[in-house]
Amino acid sequence: MPSAPSAALKRRHEIVRRRLAELSLDALVVTSLPNILYLTNFSGSSAVVVLTADRVHFVTDFRYVAAIEETAGKPVECPGLELVTVESSYDATLADLLNRLAGARVGFEAANLPVNRHSWLVAALSQKENRPALVSTEGIVEAARVKKDVYELGVLREAGRRLSKVASELVADVRRGRSETDVALDIDWRIRKAGFEKTAFDTIVAGGPNAALPHAHPGERKISEGDLVVLDFGGVWDSYCVDLTRTVSIGAAGPRAKAVHAAVLKAHDRAIAATRPGVSRFAIDGAARMSLAEDGMADAFGHGTGHGLGVEVHEDPRIGRRRSDADPDDAVAASMVFTIEPGAYFPGWGGVRIEDDVLVTDAGVELLTHVTTDLLEL
Amino acid sequence: MPSAPSAALKRRHEIVRRRLAELSLDALVVTSLPNILYLTNFSGSSAVVVLTADRVHFVTDFRYVAAIEETAGKPVECPGLELVTVESSYDATLADLLNRLAGARVGFEAANLPVNRHSWLVAALSQKENRPALVSTEGIVEAARVKKDVYELGVLREAGRRLSKVASELVADVRRGRSETDVALDIDWRIRKAGFEKTAFDTIVAGGPNAALPHAHPGERKISEGDLVVLDFGGVWDSYCVDLTRTVSIGAAGPRAKAVHAAVLKAHDRAIAATRPGVSRFAIDGAARMSLAEDGMADAFGHGTGHGLGVEVHEDPRIGRRRSDADPDDAVAASMVFTIEPGAYFPGWGGVRIEDDVLVTDAGVELLTHVTTDLLEL
Repeated sequence: MPSAPSAALKRRHEIVRRRLAELSLDALVVTSLPNILYLTNFSGSSAVVVLTADRVHFVTDFRYVAAIEETAGKPVECPGLELVTVESSYDATLADLLNRLAGARVGFEAANLPVNRHSWLVAALSQKENRPALVSTEGIVEAARVKKDVYELGVLREAGRRLSKVASELVADVRRGRSETDVALDIDWRIRKAGFEKTAFDTIVAGGPNAALPHAHPGERKISEGDLVVLDFGGVWDSYCVDLTRTVSIGAAGPRAKAVHAAVLKAHDRAIAATRPGVSRFAIDGAARMSLAEDGMADAFGHGTGHGLGVEVHEDPRIGRRRSDADPDDAVAASMVFTIEPGAYFPGWGGVRIEDDVLVTDAGVELLTHVTTDLLEL
Repeated sequence: MPSAPSAALKRRHEIVRRRLAELSLDALVVTSLPNILYLTNFSGSSAVVVLTADRVHFVTDFRYVAAIEETAGKPVECPGLELVTVESSYDATLADLLNRLAGARVGFEAANLPVNRHSWLVAALSQKENRPALVSTEGIVEAARVKKDVYELGVLREAGRRLSKVASELVADVRRGRSETDVALDIDWRIRKAGFEKTAFDTIVAGGPNAALPHAHPGERKISEGDLVVLDFGGVWDSYCVDLTRTVSIGAAGPRAKAVHAAVLKAHDRAIAATRPGVSRFAIDGAARMSLAEDGMADAFGHGTGHGLGVEVHEDPRIGRRRSDADPDDAVAASMVFTIEPGAYFPGWGGVRIEDDVLVTDAGVELLTHVTTDLLEL
């Protein structure tokens, strides 16, 4: 359960309301659960929010009514919240609510509403005179989420500290003869013991040739002398996600392992050095990519350099290559938090990835994760 | 990674193709990942499938190309698979593919395609003469999934056996003075050590008054003498989900705890006894509900009696009350697998839930979970 103070929630509502006013919208139907969590502190699995100029209509079912009512008068209460309990179905309840907003222009989240629910809603509204109009929108709440507020930065700093401690301790689990699956299980246990609610994604432990697969699933392969092992893991702390990767050597690293690790580390450091307010997200990616190209590894880096962190483990900003002309050339700004995680992968041989989490500050960048980037030889 | 044999995949494709023919559709765009897994054995996080009369066009990105190519010629190969690698974006690749199906009627999954992607696709197709027509569909692959095939039943039986073993062992973790969070962590560790890929959902450990919340999150409350503790947990085995709940007493159970447990157990047994091919899913729910009503606990059972299990932990059939006239009165049939999980909840006092997984057989019902339903006093 996140516990953003009421004043922070109020500021978030105001950011969204200003955007709604710019778009001449009277209300926004929020169906994305991460967006609902951001606006209300609600971490359950079913709710719909209708944000209007003066209310946060909160639609949920009997399972969550008590939890919502309990926040009344508390420091984490959602300002302006008006509880609407679902009787038969969420969409019928939502339609009733919207039908009371006579003549309103009501935005909906086009990336988070399936076609069938949209069609149903449109039909449920179409009988009425002076009915509300549904208007497609994208990324309104997400745009607010991209810059973290003081509460969120406190949570992310603490999460980063805890995950760094896990990272420094878990190298003890990475031993010859153990399977990737067993090591992953130990890492997950350490993450939970460190107080995280859960892991942020399926932990990656990829040794030897498996390290060449950026999204490897841990398997039964045993960790062996001479392996490079990619360890990529994350935790959810107070609903916020952090994410960290280190690559270790089992035994003394050979010359190729050392060279690849050094090249990836240089790319990682270059990308971090390039990060400051006003710099294009493509330029940060370019700094890592150019560095790897200098070392002859341009083709070995297939994925993006990083992704935003927050109530989702992959959110804006995306630090990657420009994929099309429609891909906006946004600059990063102070209070954004994202990963920097270049890698180099060689099918059949293995790979290296090094990932840290950074906060953009007025002065440049603050690392949220703190653990050695040296190539450990275990 | 699921490993359904090619022949099973082929049969699944044929079931879907027959339904497409009935609907005069030439192809189906499958965007639901559980549906893709069911049709192809693919367990990655990004893919789109276009099923036609003779092909399974499989759209994915570079991260998964090697894994797909490796299955060629193996017993788990997806028959008719034609790999299409994404260059810029999934939807652009999909539009290119669909534009080659001149004049075709192409179904899409309206519950699994957001409005913005649908709008983009429609626009990307609309420039062409003799363009394919997108047709809204719902539940085509889900309807095939509801009856499990021989491969799936083997997996679910093994998963049920393993989860039952976990259930019988984990009572050792439930001790006075330990927090719900600590017990949940131990349960999750046992599930993973038993060979499950992951837990099927966030484990519930709810003691004392928290047991009155059907969807409680484990918290810092310590397990105490006299508590009833609801333990609800599940695992994913070879991509298939199983789910089990027991409620235990800490120390000798008082008369009220015994009475509530006995009433819930009677409702659980009645619902199982009512389960056989041809019986309405509402009637199975009614059997549990009527039993609780006989014991004066009609109002204490707010949720449904059960849910289907498969590649998703909540799927059809839903064993619950009829919610509206539009809710179809489907009978259950042989080869369906679902939970039976009545409960009784009393705010401020606590609650009981007892859950097992059942397979409907020609003869009636086979239990997939096997662990005592007696009220254990720990």
